[in-house]
Amino acid sequence: MTEIYRVSSPSNIAFLKYWGKKDPLLQWPASDSLSMSLNTLATKTTAYIHDAADHLFQFQGESLTRDHKSFHKVFKHLDYLSQTHGFTEKLAFSSSNSFPTGAGVASSASGLSALTLSAIACWTHSASFDELEKNGFSREHIAHLSRIGSGSAGRSLFGGYVHWQAGTHADKQKIIPLYSASHWNLHDTVALFSHDEKSKSSTAAHSDAWSSPLFSPRIAGAPERLQAMLKALYHRDMASLGPLLETEALDMHAVMMTTRPPQHYLTTESTEFLAAFRRARQDGVFEAYFTIDAGPNIHIIHEASQTPALHNWLKEFYPNLSLLSDKVGEGPSLERGMI
Amino acid sequence: MTEIYRVSSPSNIAFLKYWGKKDPLLQWPASDSLSMSLNTLATKTTAYIHDAADHLFQFQGESLTRDHKSFHKVFKHLDYLSQTHGFTEKLAFSSSNSFPTGAGVASSASGLSALTLSAIACWTHSASFDELEKNGFSREHIAHLSRIGSGSAGRSLFGGYVHWQAGTHADKQKIIPLYSASHWNLHDTVALFSHDEKSKSSTAAHSDAWSSPLFSPRIAGAPERLQAMLKALYHRDMASLGPLLETEALDMHAVMMTTRPPQHYLTTESTEFLAAFRRARQDGVFEAYFTIDAGPNIHIIHEASQTPALHNWLKEFYPNLSLLSDKVGEGPSLERGMI
Repeated sequence: MTEIYRVSSPSNIAFLKYWGKKDPLLQWPASDSLSMSLNTLATKTTAYIHDAADHLFQFQGESLTRDHKSFHKVFKHLDYLSQTHGFTEKLAFSSSNSFPTGAGVASSASGLSALTLSAIACWTHSASFDELEKNGFSREHIAHLSRIGSGSAGRSLFGGYVHWQAGTHADKQKIIPLYSASHWNLHDTVALFSHDEKSKSSTAAHSDAWSSPLFSPRIAGAPERLQAMLKALYHRDMASLGPLLETEALDMHAVMMTTRPPQHYLTTESTEFLAAFRRARQDGVFEAYFTIDAGPNIHIIHEASQTPALHNWLKEFYPNLSLLSDKVGEGPSLERGMI
Repeated sequence: MTEIYRVSSPSNIAFLKYWGKKDPLLQWPASDSLSMSLNTLATKTTAYIHDAADHLFQFQGESLTRDHKSFHKVFKHLDYLSQTHGFTEKLAFSSSNSFPTGAGVASSASGLSALTLSAIACWTHSASFDELEKNGFSREHIAHLSRIGSGSAGRSLFGGYVHWQAGTHADKQKIIPLYSASHWNLHDTVALFSHDEKSKSSTAAHSDAWSSPLFSPRIAGAPERLQAMLKALYHRDMASLGPLLETEALDMHAVMMTTRPPQHYLTTESTEFLAAFRRARQDGVFEAYFTIDAGPNIHIIHEASQTPALHNWLKEFYPNLSLLSDKVGEGPSLERGMI
């Protein structure tokens, strides 16, 4: 019998975006970010101790090796965790996403947080967050370890609404849960757009951010945008939060589009969608607002009451558009079983 | 003795920007715009009837001809006014700006409105706005004639805060004074930045706007931004108006920077200034917000109470920066004299 650690860790959608780093080696972001952890868009990862020369990582049934172009960061992150904590045992992982692969849903937040959580749980034989804490790994500690693997993964360790604070030094960063999911039941309807161009890895794109003339004013304005969003979130004030979401997303994409080289995640198809969406909202069809991460998909944030009107509009005018429907979630889960 | 018509017409600073046209021939803007007419930044133009084969146009002492690269639009506009109204007399103009030439302060709003107003006054022998109205030229009518010469010039016909409505058809446009200057005594401290690159004429740049992927979402969102600004203006609410001003300006510049070909009015110097300015505001040094028209200069909008703190900060950190200080004004003036 072998202990197996089963983790599910959510994707998250950033309200205030993480884009650009003060220090890439330290994973020190240029500004604070704020996100909503999702519910069903998640990565499920199991881990058990594996008596072999190297870790084994299976993704959706396929065994992936150290030199895989997308998954090499999994091994790199496991090496980092091993080396910094003295964990010597090799692990076997099996991982899958709840969302369709290739749909452009960013999987690094859910994937790297699930990896980190399952690995630490397995190495420390912790069957719950309480046990992890007793073994020296608070949830925030695991969040910080996760963000080393992929910045936004740090925010996925908590449910609800999460604030990643850049702090005054790289080692003063904080990742704190602001409100649980029950504070405000916001929904995220994801409209899946394809992305023709091969996009740059986000790691490289992050470091290009400083080449945009719009980047330093953006970073300088982040604290004010944060305060405005925190206030809207506190009051559950959609009419205030919504325009902030859209401004923030377009501001980040304007930075991306004006870096050298420019980085285009939005296509004519998706920006025409944004325009039509705004016109429909102004016509009173629904109350919903978009945000867009570093990818082609458009996340439509709305209260539950707006789902029918929004989805009817989407079906009527964009019948061929694929949608994913999710909402704010409770954060990752961890359990131990035996195989 | 000859009648001479003396006009002073202000520059204006747009809060909600005019950028891009639905129809260039009809001067039909893609969206509404909203501006504050300035007080001392103005063009003074005199006109009298001139017995000659063509109009005479003197700018700051220099006689300029039809084929002058910047001033050909003056003659083109006079031809338009003559042809559409049957005015046959040739006019002699003398014109000057209150602001330094070459400072990058856009002079087409004040210049074309002063030209239109002085020409119509002269042709119709109207010594006042009342007489113009009796002669069939209401102030709004002159505003519409002015915007044919240069879009933003239409807004300079009124003092205070002015709304140019795009309307549902090109001929349903309206230019309406929302509030007089006494509603809210806002100041505009203009920081003069140089502009290295030779910029495209704004006429050509306007038509490029549609090539930016950010343009159609921008235009679709304009009605909501307008409503938010109108509300802030009504309540004289700087904390609400300010962030809207900055978002609007950066949004327009993001469009300009992502058109084909890209149009860069902002330099590293000016965007670093924006970042430092935002940080100082967040540090509580002053309460002031920037906006930027289609040019290199940064307009800092603030209440009178903020002038000392703002100007001290500017002098301390940007001692070599040239400034112009202005505030909301009463709109154009017209008088008749004899020479």
